Amino acid sequence: MSGNDFIKDRRNPRHLSAGGPSADPLPVDLIPVAGGGLLHRRLFLKSGAVLGSAAALGAAGTFAFATYGEESATEMPPMPPATPPWMKMPGGPFTNYGRPSPHEKKVIRWITSNQSSPGNGVSWTPLQDLEGVITPNGLHFERHHNGVPAIIPDRHRLLIHGLVARPLTFMVDDLLRYPMMSRLCFVECGGNSNAGWNPRPLQARAGHLHGLASCSEWSGVALSVLLDEARIDRSRAKWLYAEGADAAAVGASIPVAKAFDNAFVALYQNGERLRPENGYPMRLLIPGWEGVTHIKWLRRLKAVAQPMMSREETSKYTELVPDGTARQFTFVMDAKSLITAPSLGKKMRGPGLYQITGLAWSGRGRIARVEVSADGGESWAEAELQEP
Amino acid sequence: MSGNDFIKDRRNPRHLSAGGPSADPLPVDLIPVAGGGLLHRRLFLKSGAVLGSAAALGAAGTFAFATYGEESATEMPPMPPATPPWMKMPGGPFTNYGRPSPHEKKVIRWITSNQSSPGNGVSWTPLQDLEGVITPNGLHFERHHNGVPAIIPDRHRLLIHGLVARPLTFMVDDLLRYPMMSRLCFVECGGNSNAGWNPRPLQARAGHLHGLASCSEWSGVALSVLLDEARIDRSRAKWLYAEGADAAAVGASIPVAKAFDNAFVALYQNGERLRPENGYPMRLLIPGWEGVTHIKWLRRLKAVAQPMMSREETSKYTELVPDGTARQFTFVMDAKSLITAPSLGKKMRGPGLYQITGLAWSGRGRIARVEVSADGGESWAEAELQEP
Repeated sequence: MSGNDFIKDRRNPRHLSAGGPSADPLPVDLIPVAGGGLLHRRLFLKSGAVLGSAAALGAAGTFAFATYGEESATEMPPMPPATPPWMKMPGGPFTNYGRPSPHEKKVIRWITSNQSSPGNGVSWTPLQDLEGVITPNGLHFERHHNGVPAIIPDRHRLLIHGLVARPLTFMVDDLLRYPMMSRLCFVECGGNSNAGWNPRPLQARAGHLHGLASCSEWSGVALSVLLDEARIDRSRAKWLYAEGADAAAVGASIPVAKAFDNAFVALYQNGERLRPENGYPMRLLIPGWEGVTHIKWLRRLKAVAQPMMSREETSKYTELVPDGTARQFTFVMDAKSLITAPSLGKKMRGPGLYQITGLAWSGRGRIARVEVSADGGESWAEAELQEP
Repeated sequence: MSGNDFIKDRRNPRHLSAGGPSADPLPVDLIPVAGGGLLHRRLFLKSGAVLGSAAALGAAGTFAFATYGEESATEMPPMPPATPPWMKMPGGPFTNYGRPSPHEKKVIRWITSNQSSPGNGVSWTPLQDLEGVITPNGLHFERHHNGVPAIIPDRHRLLIHGLVARPLTFMVDDLLRYPMMSRLCFVECGGNSNAGWNPRPLQARAGHLHGLASCSEWSGVALSVLLDEARIDRSRAKWLYAEGADAAAVGASIPVAKAFDNAFVALYQNGERLRPENGYPMRLLIPGWEGVTHIKWLRRLKAVAQPMMSREETSKYTELVPDGTARQFTFVMDAKSLITAPSLGKKMRGPGLYQITGLAWSGRGRIARVEVSADGGESWAEAELQEP
């Protein structure tokens, strides 16, 4: 048998021959790899199509297994018409900026905000509807504390001050003259997946549980370049206080060491300038760290000796522990994986083989391996990783 | 001197001290690397931020040098206001699907179509306005022969027929049950950069000359899987005729060997379902080959012994040579590089250092090296590559 029998046996495509698919037995090479019906995903995808390494941080992948059930004959669908109606008339016009198909209007961010303060809330990336690791800009998750500021870019300034020898302000055009760096990385809200604390697992779509995480190619200017430009006093300045130009003035204290390691001021997301809800015209990107540190609408970086103990690092974005104290400055987003398909709200069309797909990422480094269990952790099987 | 003096010397940011920047001489470590004023780009970006390998085909990068001129004092700009107006009022609402800032409304595709048949033409990606290698979906170039068909996805079928033992039709939902592959790759129209044939170099923006090339993460089902599913007769079927469901029924003959190598039916682009102008609900992706083979709105794959000699591979998309014959089936897009910044239409704010940025790609493999000349090819310097 060829390596494609796994596929051939699924018979979900429509045969042109009359009658339903034949009732072949389970192919002998469909050997379970773990309990609960997990089968190995055959390596029918050419090895050349599985892409190489990505970012050292922010790796993400898909993993796939198949569960096997009984086949059932399906009704013969209509044959493809020789010329569907849209081939009989000229098509629609060219557009300066494209939009998704109107038939995909259900693929949207899910907004959950506080009714009494509508600018404070989140919108969730519909992970269950997406493929690959890039999140399209229109669906990148949002977390706002007081809505999206309508910044006029020519009137926006980034100020670098505090323990620096040369305080500086930067306009957008100033930053655009610096060498750009690009990096594919995830951004994840520190509060993502909080529903997982529920004592009983919630039945919800993947994106409604874990969709405060998205992945883009970000481009901008290394923070090390800008801090050197301002001649930061590295013997005294151990922290940076970053502040946004939104009405909540969201701020976070960031160790200078991380700023010099790999942080940057992003101006572009997936090739184009930032969207308003993602920090237009400039935001911080702190690879692998919790989202609140990636200050959007960045207006100020103050070099200081100690963290500022602002609202978002004291009463918020800290983790209460049972003794009544709270963990603070827990910056790194740890390894996480989740299943995006099958997911609640997606119809499974009868028994048969289904691919299990998911995402995995970590702020601590590259994802080396993902294991999956379908029997409550009794047995585990290794997933195939794909990276962009 | 530190490695950042190149940056420090540019002085384009605004000093907070009174008066203009000091008139330091050219730093001694700004050594020209080639004629015409090319200087080396310092390695001030941490090596960890330069990302690893990408696709074997379809590599793209940025390269950077700097030209040095005389500094001039610039007028002191206004200080950043303590609280700009957008910090004094609640921000705008969350949105289900984001859009670019209204201040970026000039960053659009440039449409050039035939007035007498408006559905036949192209729209160009504004390469000079973008950073990184991902093209956002709204700005991916378009090439239509008779406009964009308004396909109802549930009524669309892909038929695989001809020299196959088991002719099959696939609905979108059928394809979604197959294992997905994802791949970052460019698509480029075979007619891209045709203005380069002009005997005198045209003065135009990078995207107006070369913008029929874009790069996305595409996800879909390997063609090898679908052809095996239909039990293609590989001893007789050497070509596939692929046909689109647009009003022009654009078609192309593709060698079966390439189909089995790394071609796939794409359903997703940068994470979300294809946009209408990029083939919704399904299109071919033929990595590294000319755009016309990536049939959009794919409705039919016919396995045949010989190429079909359709319009788009005979009277069109062939290359006339001086003896009156034409080259045919010249599928692979060869290596190309171009400068995206500086580019016509972008103001250069006086003398000083400027980064030179560009893109390079090839359908024949990974880009290993890019060289730049600023003196008409007399001397060359190697560029720094960045990959996603």
